[in-house]
Amino acid sequence: MNAADDLQQYLTARRTAIDAALLAALPSPPSCPSAVADAMRFSIRAGGKRLRPILCLASAEAVGGDWRQAMPTACAIEFIHTYSLIHDDLPAMDNDTLRRGRPTLHVVAGEGMAILAGDGLLTEAFALLARMPATIDPAIVARKLRVSGVVAVAAGATGMVGGQALDLGGSSAMNADSLRVMHSKKTAALIRAAAVAGAIMGGAADAIVDRVDAAAADFGLAFQIVDDILDVEGHSAQLGKTAGKDAAAGKPTYPALYGVDAARTMAAECLERAERALTAAGLAQTRLMDIGRWIVNRSN
Amino acid sequence: MNAADDLQQYLTARRTAIDAALLAALPSPPSCPSAVADAMRFSIRAGGKRLRPILCLASAEAVGGDWRQAMPTACAIEFIHTYSLIHDDLPAMDNDTLRRGRPTLHVVAGEGMAILAGDGLLTEAFALLARMPATIDPAIVARKLRVSGVVAVAAGATGMVGGQALDLGGSSAMNADSLRVMHSKKTAALIRAAAVAGAIMGGAADAIVDRVDAAAADFGLAFQIVDDILDVEGHSAQLGKTAGKDAAAGKPTYPALYGVDAARTMAAECLERAERALTAAGLAQTRLMDIGRWIVNRSN
Repeated sequence: MNAADDLQQYLTARRTAIDAALLAALPSPPSCPSAVADAMRFSIRAGGKRLRPILCLASAEAVGGDWRQAMPTACAIEFIHTYSLIHDDLPAMDNDTLRRGRPTLHVVAGEGMAILAGDGLLTEAFALLARMPATIDPAIVARKLRVSGVVAVAAGATGMVGGQALDLGGSSAMNADSLRVMHSKKTAALIRAAAVAGAIMGGAADAIVDRVDAAAADFGLAFQIVDDILDVEGHSAQLGKTAGKDAAAGKPTYPALYGVDAARTMAAECLERAERALTAAGLAQTRLMDIGRWIVNRSN
Repeated sequence: MNAADDLQQYLTARRTAIDAALLAALPSPPSCPSAVADAMRFSIRAGGKRLRPILCLASAEAVGGDWRQAMPTACAIEFIHTYSLIHDDLPAMDNDTLRRGRPTLHVVAGEGMAILAGDGLLTEAFALLARMPATIDPAIVARKLRVSGVVAVAAGATGMVGGQALDLGGSSAMNADSLRVMHSKKTAALIRAAAVAGAIMGGAADAIVDRVDAAAADFGLAFQIVDDILDVEGHSAQLGKTAGKDAAAGKPTYPALYGVDAARTMAAECLERAERALTAAGLAQTRLMDIGRWIVNRSN
């Protein structure tokens, strides 16, 4: 089996485990009213690459931890990612009616229920992060609290929510610097948090966590650059959303600012920087690095 | 000084401390984009009774803890309460344009920014709950993680968000049972969590925490009953919102279902049950109990 097939098998296996864990972690009736339970389930089942939870599990594994112990953390981060898509798609935000080839939640369940399902997923994420393990080991408890803080800061007003606010505030006036700041918050912050949370749950020392963070920051930037390139070049069917939509909406993109070739070079440079950081941490020969390569080389 | 004046002084002093702590805990530029920072600040500054954070601090104090140590917890809970008001007021939800005598956030900042400010406050709440104290005492770390879980479950889809979903789903068809379930989630869950979180942070034993929880459940129910009575009888200026609005909107209320006199009796019974629970915990002679009485006897 070649390396690419091997990675695809790994990704598929992790995605299957993650999908099952996500559904099991969702609140359900009778304690949860069925309307909001159904709405949350609809968006979680809509799938996607599961990049963030995969990154979280791979990071835990890379530093020598057991990826299964990081699964609640990985699910919590995917809950937060899913909530952010639901709220971003709302009429008052990006007004998207199609996501991953399916109607968006507010189209299916109404705007009020979509807002609530997003709120619910965000809140349940922190319930998951705080859920006590069977044995209360003080070291695990401390890791969990630290992870909850890392994730909250990454997802909050100085991170993802702040990035969305910048996006909402007036993207047409953005230059290269403000575009970088927006994406570092809107997209890269949660990707970084996923890798960092995995490393913390896996028991990594602080110096290792910092290098994983640095590598994941470059993964996050590369992810956004490749997303922009795919938006220009891709086909709607492959992307599951309308190709060229960002460019048509006048949103600044890396290919628009730098051209496609230079944007590709920037993504490759991100990967090199990430590899140097992971090499310094002794983590270059791991699935974590493979996932970075996949982020850059993916076609959807 | 009589007892009522003394309580008013206490409430005013706590409110002053809470208001200062809330503003200090809000994210601010440059790390937080100014538009979303301003929006969060607008709603936090809009004030209100600060019932939940006061209850949290009083609970910590009642069980023998230092109320100052519970302040980040109290602020986090008020962040969550404030986010819930912002989202509830949105056009897709209750479509309220007036709150505490001021225009609602979506009127002032736009719907998209109001959604984001709510998301931001909810997320920052969990950042606050996870913030490490200066000295990392394992017992404090464990309390903080436990509180984060209690608050997340209370605010989430089986709690407050679930209650709002029930409210959105069709309140006109509600009977006494479904009304009680809705309010136990929508209003009482976070009030309970405030008291429970305070007790946990104050270092209470589990049996004491359970009794505080039971008392606070009755405080929460009484709060809703009195709110409904004030909505029928109150004046708009005193309430800071349109009196009679719930009844006019066809929302079920306790006075509508039982009549005002029977509703008053129900609130008094809640207070008696709460007092029995707090007496059993040795906490009847505390500010916590005083606050329960204030909930029932308040005029706004």
